[in-house]
Amino acid sequence: QATSPSTGTSTNRSTGERYQRIRAMSVNIAAPLTPEDCAMQTMPDVSPTRWHLAHTTWFFETFLLKEQPGFRPFHSDFERLFNSYYNSVGEPFPRHRRGQLSRPGLEETLQYRQHVDVAVSQLIDQGELNEHQRYVLELGLHHEQQHQELMLTDIKHVLASNPLYPIYTKNTATNNNTEASLSTTLQWSETPETIVEIGHNGKGFAYDNESPRHRELIQPHAIADRCVTNGEYLEFINAGGYQQPEHWLSLGWTAVNENGWKAPQYWVRGDEDWRQFTLSGLRPLDLHEPVCHVSYFEADAYARWSGKRLPTEFEWEHAATANPTGSVFADRLMESGHVIHPRTAGASDFTGNVWEWTGSQYLPYPGYRPVSGALGEYNGKFMCNQFVLRGGSCATSSDHIRLSYRNFFPPDARWQFSGFRLADSR
Amino acid sequence: QATSPSTGTSTNRSTGERYQRIRAMSVNIAAPLTPEDCAMQTMPDVSPTRWHLAHTTWFFETFLLKEQPGFRPFHSDFERLFNSYYNSVGEPFPRHRRGQLSRPGLEETLQYRQHVDVAVSQLIDQGELNEHQRYVLELGLHHEQQHQELMLTDIKHVLASNPLYPIYTKNTATNNNTEASLSTTLQWSETPETIVEIGHNGKGFAYDNESPRHRELIQPHAIADRCVTNGEYLEFINAGGYQQPEHWLSLGWTAVNENGWKAPQYWVRGDEDWRQFTLSGLRPLDLHEPVCHVSYFEADAYARWSGKRLPTEFEWEHAATANPTGSVFADRLMESGHVIHPRTAGASDFTGNVWEWTGSQYLPYPGYRPVSGALGEYNGKFMCNQFVLRGGSCATSSDHIRLSYRNFFPPDARWQFSGFRLADSR
Amino acid sequence: QATSPSTGTSTNRSTGERYQRIRAMSVNIAAPLTPEDCAMQTMPDVSPTRWHLAHTTWFFETFLLKEQPGFRPFHSDFERLFNSYYNSVGEPFPRHRRGQLSRPGLEETLQYRQHVDVAVSQLIDQGELNEHQRYVLELGLHHEQQHQELMLTDIKHVLASNPLYPIYTKNTATNNNTEASLSTTLQWSETPETIVEIGHNGKGFAYDNESPRHRELIQPHAIADRCVTNGEYLEFINAGGYQQPEHWLSLGWTAVNENGWKAPQYWVRGDEDWRQFTLSGLRPLDLHEPVCHVSYFEADAYARWSGKRLPTEFEWEHAATANPTGSVFADRLMESGHVIHPRTAGASDFTGNVWEWTGSQYLPYPGYRPVSGALGEYNGKFMCNQFVLRGGSCATSSDHIRLSYRNFFPPDARWQFSGFRLADSR
Amino acid sequence: QATSPSTGTSTNRSTGERYQRIRAMSVNIAAPLTPEDCAMQTMPDVSPTRWHLAHTTWFFETFLLKEQPGFRPFHSDFERLFNSYYNSVGEPFPRHRRGQLSRPGLEETLQYRQHVDVAVSQLIDQGELNEHQRYVLELGLHHEQQHQELMLTDIKHVLASNPLYPIYTKNTATNNNTEASLSTTLQWSETPETIVEIGHNGKGFAYDNESPRHRELIQPHAIADRCVTNGEYLEFINAGGYQQPEHWLSLGWTAVNENGWKAPQYWVRGDEDWRQFTLSGLRPLDLHEPVCHVSYFEADAYARWSGKRLPTEFEWEHAATANPTGSVFADRLMESGHVIHPRTAGASDFTGNVWEWTGSQYLPYPGYRPVSGALGEYNGKFMCNQFVLRGGSCATSSDHIRLSYRNFFPPDARWQFSGFRLADSR
Ligand SMILES: [Fe+3]
Ligand SMILES: [Fe+3]
Ligand SMILES: [Fe+3]
Ligand SMILES: [Fe+3]
Repeated sequence: QATSPSTGTSTNRSTGERYQRIRAMSVNIAAPLTPEDCAMQTMPDVSPTRWHLAHTTWFFETFLLKEQPGFRPFHSDFERLFNSYYNSVGEPFPRHRRGQLSRPGLEETLQYRQHVDVAVSQLIDQGELNEHQRYVLELGLHHEQQHQELMLTDIKHVLASNPLYPIYTKNTATNNNTEASLSTTLQWSETPETIVEIGHNGKGFAYDNESPRHRELIQPHAIADRCVTNGEYLEFINAGGYQQPEHWLSLGWTAVNENGWKAPQYWVRGDEDWRQFTLSGLRPLDLHEPVCHVSYFEADAYARWSGKRLPTEFEWEHAATANPTGSVFADRLMESGHVIHPRTAGASDFTGNVWEWTGSQYLPYPGYRPVSGALGEYNGKFMCNQFVLRGGSCATSSDHIRLSYRNFFPPDARWQFSGFRLADSR
Repeated sequence: QATSPSTGTSTNRSTGERYQRIRAMSVNIAAPLTPEDCAMQTMPDVSPTRWHLAHTTWFFETFLLKEQPGFRPFHSDFERLFNSYYNSVGEPFPRHRRGQLSRPGLEETLQYRQHVDVAVSQLIDQGELNEHQRYVLELGLHHEQQHQELMLTDIKHVLASNPLYPIYTKNTATNNNTEASLSTTLQWSETPETIVEIGHNGKGFAYDNESPRHRELIQPHAIADRCVTNGEYLEFINAGGYQQPEHWLSLGWTAVNENGWKAPQYWVRGDEDWRQFTLSGLRPLDLHEPVCHVSYFEADAYARWSGKRLPTEFEWEHAATANPTGSVFADRLMESGHVIHPRTAGASDFTGNVWEWTGSQYLPYPGYRPVSGALGEYNGKFMCNQFVLRGGSCATSSDHIRLSYRNFFPPDARWQFSGFRLADSR
Repeated sequence: QATSPSTGTSTNRSTGERYQRIRAMSVNIAAPLTPEDCAMQTMPDVSPTRWHLAHTTWFFETFLLKEQPGFRPFHSDFERLFNSYYNSVGEPFPRHRRGQLSRPGLEETLQYRQHVDVAVSQLIDQGELNEHQRYVLELGLHHEQQHQELMLTDIKHVLASNPLYPIYTKNTATNNNTEASLSTTLQWSETPETIVEIGHNGKGFAYDNESPRHRELIQPHAIADRCVTNGEYLEFINAGGYQQPEHWLSLGWTAVNENGWKAPQYWVRGDEDWRQFTLSGLRPLDLHEPVCHVSYFEADAYARWSGKRLPTEFEWEHAATANPTGSVFADRLMESGHVIHPRTAGASDFTGNVWEWTGSQYLPYPGYRPVSGALGEYNGKFMCNQFVLRGGSCATSSDHIRLSYRNFFPPDARWQFSGFRLADSR
Repeated sequence: QATSPSTGTSTNRSTGERYQRIRAMSVNIAAPLTPEDCAMQTMPDVSPTRWHLAHTTWFFETFLLKEQPGFRPFHSDFERLFNSYYNSVGEPFPRHRRGQLSRPGLEETLQYRQHVDVAVSQLIDQGELNEHQRYVLELGLHHEQQHQELMLTDIKHVLASNPLYPIYTKNTATNNNTEASLSTTLQWSETPETIVEIGHNGKGFAYDNESPRHRELIQPHAIADRCVTNGEYLEFINAGGYQQPEHWLSLGWTAVNENGWKAPQYWVRGDEDWRQFTLSGLRPLDLHEPVCHVSYFEADAYARWSGKRLPTEFEWEHAATANPTGSVFADRLMESGHVIHPRTAGASDFTGNVWEWTGSQYLPYPGYRPVSGALGEYNGKFMCNQFVLRGGSCATSSDHIRLSYRNFFPPDARWQFSGFRLADSR
């Protein structure tokens, strides 16, 4: 749920254009892929590209169009097939079987998008959206952008699972390793005890889990001015970090052993060196880049090994608000033909490079209440056994992120563009 | 392994034409499918259509072309990717992950086929194949036909797993329900104790598991003149057969409960009647057809419930040899535009309608020895915990089947076109 | 790890007596059990009584006696066999196999206890314990008491798993249902925003996870003056709570369905009424008792259903500190021959009746550092995906509990004496 | 089910004495064990000793006493608790949870035995047993003896699972390694094609699966005059047998890798030599003993590696009938204080040393029909995916075995005293 956005000032025309632009981005992301690429589910957490294309469309059809007079669904089975987890809408098709559906195919899926886009655009053009409808429209667009990032991370997992290591885009523009981008000595920013305002400030859209804005007591602490780099993380590996239980949470140590983790996901051990799989293929490991595709367990173990800890989500938001630096987001990277990959030059930035694990488990803010109805299932029911990530990554869209944004994943998740920075108590 | 076939009499031209014809059939089978259809693996036993197309090509490349001077593989990774289970060739790509490979795509797979077909055809045309090469060529064509049947049964499983129930071909020519094809009263054919010759008689090709031909003592028994029909099997269901443990093998009763079996696979319960999913979509259940898509457990339970038993594979071969009636095979059905589905009129036939479960576990014939080398892995290492099926189904090719043919599947397999006929001891 | 306790003032004699008393309690808890009872592990989380008796002894042997000059272990294999999870000590015997060890038997285990007790008592009597040793001794006694509660909850699970419903003790003294103990109308205690001191105040022993004492900002809220009762929880059940996904966390709804939960653990549905299994056998469900043996998921779902939430652990500690009421603990219940079971009269009490789930995931306090060495594994490595419970139950010892005590279990754990009270944001 | 035995000639007195003797043997087997030993289930296939004691008693109570006028069960819950797999009697208590029941304890279990023994003895003494009752009595005694062997193999597994390697009995009388018992050069016994009578000849008791006696055609073959020895099997290990897939059935190779098999069960690798765990503790590996505790997969792999095969059950029965040599059975070994362990001197014997795996899957004999009613579940429903073993082992009772006896286990079972001899086709 989002707090009610002040979209009233935007004209219908600009709303319609924004709808078209954001919807088109999803199709653009799928453009370099084959129909078979779009059909794969290489682990239960991964959804096929085609499913994302359909599900984001289902969102508008179900929550916006369905209540229109004279509504007829594009296909009577799609309500169930493309429901992700909204029990209020009906029993969803089992998540782990999304990769077992060859139909509707890519072409029919794009027709489904077209069909719904026409109807939504008409609705917008009529200019008679009520407040709830404007809210659902806005929510739907942010939902679309959220899935755009998942499309990129899911397809990265799909391609990396194939011994042929297929390439998503052949972009060769280097993100990194310019003189200016070498990693620098880490600096610490000190903060005494203080009470701060946390959460969404009410300007523009936000998800319900960013509210209510409220006061939090920040403990005395220091926070690093940049993320941990591949080079630093490699020291942990070379020091035997993955073989020594003393650095790990108990569940983390189990994960290391059951999954055979020896390095971040997508690191590939060559005979003489480490390489990493990127959306533009296998590349040499750049030691100055922020480390990426690590789980909370790995971030936490590195921090313990180095005698530090991860920042809380409140410490992070406080630091980022004081220093709102941003790197380059997915939409800009795609436009400019760059690889969608963390930039060395962005290692200090709080947004737009890697999601940063915090030491906070994902829980409701004081006084949080999900909206009533099916859309209340958007966020609230996942507030258990996940950790908060902040900042947005190189796979996020630039108008999708804000400093109060709370992303969340289970502590063993590694397939997102997730890194971390250190903090320490004073 | 096959016993050495007497292919010497066939001219190179006819060999080449036969190679082209059989290879083309695989591509024809895939023709009605979308690229996404060809990518699906809806259970571990199912392989994607595209995998079948590549693996059958891999067979010729690996066992025939690889030993040619100057051989270069089409793609260096394919040796591992499309190895099914030949440990002697190297460690195969994990079977359960075949559906997680989006590349090589359908187009590249067809290029792979083309590439290998050119090379094999040249080899044939040169007319200098030695005996071992002629044997491998022949084996490769039978291997291809074996996989053609699997392509049909696997794609049936893929389509049936989709709530949209997609149709493979829209054929509407009725196979059944003509006056002439109504099921008739079952007749018993009696046999006293007798010693018979069992196994391949040396004419034409056969797999190694059909040899050596040897003498078996047949016990006094009777065997039914036709298969059990849907109507008869429905009586078992309606009598509570799936709820009564006393009819079932212990492992079968476990399978019923763990899988929630209530009817043969692909039977769909409507509000008022039973329908069944076919390769031409959902159709009303024809009570006169042979029951199909039952496991050994179900065949055995029906037999116990009816006070009878399944025939041994020797009893079956003896009866079929005395009365070698055949129905219509897959290649003919496809040519004539019929549905690939068991025919009512074929209920009495021993070949070409449904595979018939026998009560014999799959074991070597006395004196059986697999060939040396990798091709020895073709059959011999599977002689454990499987049951023999005989006869060939409506999804088998007509020149692939013979009365000595021993098909085999685990007792819980249901996705093949498998039915059964009854026998009784005297 | 515990913060260094001020045990210096206690004379050696009183220390020795306390050691003897606490150690004896473990043996007393096992006294009503048969050797077979003491051998059972009815789920992976449950440890056999005999294992608890040995492991608590191992703790003193490993961390106190082993470093003494001339030390010889009671048995060379016990270091591994009875290591629970201390990787620094060596690879522990697999937890899920604790119930597969018939030896050492009960008698030998008691000899092991005797042997170690003699050595520890001598050490105490010599009066030359250094500070670290006094700390380990104190920690070992609290460790013993922690396992005493687990012995009671584990054996309850063992007995309840048996269709014979065996009785642990035949105590019939009623805890409940006196006039004075009927549940009363729930009252709310209001608190405005305030900054409070949280954590152990340094007096007496505490685990390391209760430190450092630090300042927390409490949000405006109200907290209930008593726990939710069986009667109230039954309304949730009767209203269909276990069938309605909208009240549940996503992981909770999965747990309900995978485990078939329909009521709290140990509730037994009779033909006409509900009964519950207690350590004194099956009893009618007392509607005025605090509900017990519910998971975090169930506590949270009840709270959502009723429009409230669970208190944070800070809110709980603040409220309990203001109103430090206590019920009757395990040691007193055993002495007086009462059933070890929550008391209706204690429904308002913050300690000594049921552990109370809070809405706080178990995370380190700001500035928390585990001790170095093996004992650092005591608490710190479990700070992930668990929820904090507060207060201590009817199965806790009276000198083991304090208001700053942080118990923690995964959100699906139900076999502890766990209940909850409600809170609400203002 | 047993074919009706001619027990009419035995007087009631001798029947009663035999009943007492066989029943006492079960208690004798349990005598060296502690109550905790008797409670363990170290894998799903293993049942606790105490369960065996109760279940064999349940057999007489359920099938013999229950139909007596005025019958009252010893305990109303035992009918379900100690039902192994007789669905006709009711839903059995889950097999994998047998080790989770601490009650009834050993003492109460022995009282249960006592109670039933008194009633059965009275019934026998009254001398009015009808034919069916005499059959059930006889079947119950053979059932008891079958479970006596399982008690020994199950407790061996229990003790071997404990790192302390507890000893069942301290017997030190050497079975082996006398001059006379060194393994000799293997001799082959040749047989031409012949028709033989197979199955029980009607004299004395037999299970239903040994009938009907019928004619089988034996193929020309040779069979070894003794079992494969530890020394010979060690050559297979040292030649890399467990690392080479080419010797193994496909399912066998999976079993090797999933279970990490490197040698027969109970072989323990020391620094310099192999030892084996026996019921009298760890002992040096005797190279002249028959190899024991191998699965079918291992027997088959050894045979393939050596260029031979396993005999069929018919070849075995034919050879054993021609040369009915027997070694020493469990009851005699226990009387004489010997270790229950295969004897080197018995390597040539067909009975009483190790069960011998045959290459025959367990299927019904021609014309086999299980008895009607619950006792029909004794054998018939297990005729699927198991292999036949013949001969009886050092853990079998001497009056329980005969040459027509068909034992059966899945091909991965290793915890029985199972070895094998080789055969070859001619
Ligand atoms: Fe979504
Ligand atoms: Fe193949
Ligand atoms: Fe402990
Ligand atoms: Fe039994």
